[in-house]
Amino acid sequence: MKAIQLYYPPEWAHCYGCGYLNAQGLRIETYWHPERGESETRFTPKPHHTAIPGFVYGGLLASLVDCHSTATAAAAKAAAEGVSLEEAPLRFVTASLKVDFLKPTPLGPELRLVGRPKEVKGRKVVVETELYAEETLTVRGEAVLVQIGEGFGRSEDAPAGG
Amino acid sequence: MKAIQLYYPPEWAHCYGCGYLNAQGLRIETYWHPERGESETRFTPKPHHTAIPGFVYGGLLASLVDCHSTATAAAAKAAAEGVSLEEAPLRFVTASLKVDFLKPTPLGPELRLVGRPKEVKGRKVVVETELYAEETLTVRGEAVLVQIGEGFGRSEDAPAGG
Repeated sequence: MKAIQLYYPPEWAHCYGCGYLNAQGLRIETYWHPERGESETRFTPKPHHTAIPGFVYGGLLASLVDCHSTATAAAAKAAAEGVSLEEAPLRFVTASLKVDFLKPTPLGPELRLVGRPKEVKGRKVVVETELYAEETLTVRGEAVLVQIGEGFGRSEDAPAGG
Repeated sequence: MKAIQLYYPPEWAHCYGCGYLNAQGLRIETYWHPERGESETRFTPKPHHTAIPGFVYGGLLASLVDCHSTATAAAAKAAAEGVSLEEAPLRFVTASLKVDFLKPTPLGPELRLVGRPKEVKGRKVVVETELYAEETLTVRGEAVLVQIGEGFGRSEDAPAGG
């Protein structure tokens, strides 16, 4: 299986969180599971991704939810339209990101994010995410994503996050 | 003036976003302006902090709002109690973080975050943030912060972000 982010067109593949063309980035990779209608991202933070010693930095957790959600939106939109990402390399950016830190997330183990599209409507997708550290749910996320086109950044009113 | 983060006790100063003991971190610094009841954080993203080329990565913007908000909470709580951070080095962590990306944030210029405590109640503080790139408001944040004590991370129900 190929990560959703690897389908992004090269001109939009420089994201610090998940761009395959960003050599200094986090290279977050998200996979779509059509049979479950869910996405999954696995990531092991580095030792310096600390909050309070022993726990993962909240900004990194927000970054994981962010890139995981933009990728989930692309896959969910492609699935809703009955096209493959190969033929339609969709790219979404974040309009709004909400992260609830339910418990401290231990630094060390691989983290697992599970995403579900809550709404797919026109250019907008809403994604709900649960983040687990060793089977314990520690973070809940909700993101609103907007599909971008060639004119991205030229319009004054285009939203943009990760 | 000394940044709020520089008052954090050394055992809680390893945060990737703002800890002075994290050599690989972002070293975000926030200043409290008692006369305005506001905080201010200035940060210039690195060229690799890209989203779509030309714009700042949303996960970095969320990280800025995160550490800026925890620091603002410490200063606001100290002000509300009439103590100085020198005598009471308060440390907050994030329970919940909401970031609205109103417009793409240009990558290049220094960014300026302005924070205002919306609520200071017991161990909880709510902080509202506006982020500007060259006088243009591009991001709005709201964070709920919780003050931690010595037992942090040992209790199962303690929230924790940045």
